[in-house]
Amino acid sequence: MSNTIALYPLSNFTFSTKEAQPEEDPSVSARLQRLQNNYEDFGMRRTVEGVLVVHDHGHPHILMLQIANAFFKLPGDYLKPGEDEIEGLKRRLDERLAPPSDSRQFNASHGVDNDWEIGDCLAQWWRPNFETFMVRFDPSLREARCFDYFSACMQYPFIPAHITKPKECKKLFLVQMPERKVLAVPKNMKLLAIPLFELYDNAARYGPQLSAIPHLLSRYPCTIPLPLSLAFSSADFIVALESVGVSPFNPGSLSEVLSNVTVIDTAHYLSTEFRRQWGVVGVSRVSPLLHPKPPTSD
Amino acid sequence: MSNTIALYPLSNFTFSTKEAQPEEDPSVSARLQRLQNNYEDFGMRRTVEGVLVVHDHGHPHILMLQIANAFFKLPGDYLKPGEDEIEGLKRRLDERLAPPSDSRQFNASHGVDNDWEIGDCLAQWWRPNFETFMVRFDPSLREARCFDYFSACMQYPFIPAHITKPKECKKLFLVQMPERKVLAVPKNMKLLAIPLFELYDNAARYGPQLSAIPHLLSRYPCTIPLPLSLAFSSADFIVALESVGVSPFNPGSLSEVLSNVTVIDTAHYLSTEFRRQWGVVGVSRVSPLLHPKPPTSD
Repeated sequence: MSNTIALYPLSNFTFSTKEAQPEEDPSVSARLQRLQNNYEDFGMRRTVEGVLVVHDHGHPHILMLQIANAFFKLPGDYLKPGEDEIEGLKRRLDERLAPPSDSRQFNASHGVDNDWEIGDCLAQWWRPNFETFMVRFDPSLREARCFDYFSACMQYPFIPAHITKPKECKKLFLVQMPERKVLAVPKNMKLLAIPLFELYDNAARYGPQLSAIPHLLSRYPCTIPLPLSLAFSSADFIVALESVGVSPFNPGSLSEVLSNVTVIDTAHYLSTEFRRQWGVVGVSRVSPLLHPKPPTSD
Repeated sequence: MSNTIALYPLSNFTFSTKEAQPEEDPSVSARLQRLQNNYEDFGMRRTVEGVLVVHDHGHPHILMLQIANAFFKLPGDYLKPGEDEIEGLKRRLDERLAPPSDSRQFNASHGVDNDWEIGDCLAQWWRPNFETFMVRFDPSLREARCFDYFSACMQYPFIPAHITKPKECKKLFLVQMPERKVLAVPKNMKLLAIPLFELYDNAARYGPQLSAIPHLLSRYPCTIPLPLSLAFSSADFIVALESVGVSPFNPGSLSEVLSNVTVIDTAHYLSTEFRRQWGVVGVSRVSPLLHPKPPTSD
């Protein structure tokens, strides 16, 4: 996987629903007991989650599950003892988001060719112990719903001093979305695309882990691949396809793309469809960056 | 550069002082004017800063400059138009921290062999415009001192929507510290080693950029290379050097190291020197992880 994230528009993805996936535990105390039992039996819990990035109007958005209209979480879950991280994450993403194998969408768009492309590990979070789970727990909130939120507050992006046996390690992985995909969402959850600017500096709403995602992604250049159909069907311009990437992190690269465009009619070189597709990169903003080649005479 | 950060103890580094490096501008308004002039002349300002990591008692610390007992900044500065990022960062780190070429320390420990090892880009920050510099500026604070702090608050780890011409892009690079080095600090600054746990969740004191460093580093495994002299000179144990890394992020790996140790005297297998060197990884904490090989008979 290259170091560049290819961003496809949110509208490329099809969302359907599947059976509910209820919480494993009826209460927080039952969950704590299960975690403690598992730790004694299997050692440190390993959790993997995926950061799925798309764009809307050129701005990167993260696909997140919302449970019971309350807290947000990334798709993923804990691994079985000895299970491989990458293969395990693919299985968890399938469990959470793949259309059921007996559904119509399964055959159409989700098969072996539609594997998940797991990229870099973006961050690791460590849970020092189970006991502190409860410290900031607000009993006035419904237990199961906010457990994960407060649980995230008890994790750190390093192993705190004096902790030699952390109880859980959670890894966040970048997931490169394909151009199109059907995502089936359990009925008790919603899948939402949250823009980076909403997550940034918003630990109060999203917790320390999700609000840090903009930081974690900032190192990656993003490109918005130009859809082939658009490039060739627009009557307004012909694109030299050697160079088709524009980064929302680096609008300067638009000039590089457009310098490879042979402009037929400068007055209308950006069609309405193009503008809709590319969002904020509208005509007025693009113009000052343009260094078009002279129109060809034939 | 590998994906693992080798952490050397803070006590390995020698700190001296050199001539003061005063602010370029006498006031915030003068600085704003200079930035605006430079933008008009040269386009987007590019800034590079280094994240220098050491450890103290096994916990990673970041080397930061503190100016006038007030705000903190990473070593680094803006680049000249066209200047290469990596070479430019090395030059800025030398300007800020290398002993002057006519000093005694220069010959002893800082020469061409003592180049800076620049690693991954950890994050990018974008400044949408100069105008908003002032929005959160508190005039009751001394102008030049807090300028950089508030300036950092006006940068984002993505390009905000509707911004097509950001005014500055700042890149943070990981810098792998060598085992030992002399660092000469300008007299008007202090160089401090700030622990990750102090930075984490502390944007109020360190601003949004510095407080995010623990997130940015969490993906990297860290090792504390065992000093050769210690490994061979300790009368308490002989280390099989094939495996000498212990990660403060993964105390479990200590058991791997120690399983390669042939223990001569289990009662004293960790000398006082070893314990001092390794900080929190003391005897009582280590013992349960030990799987020592049987002592050899010769």
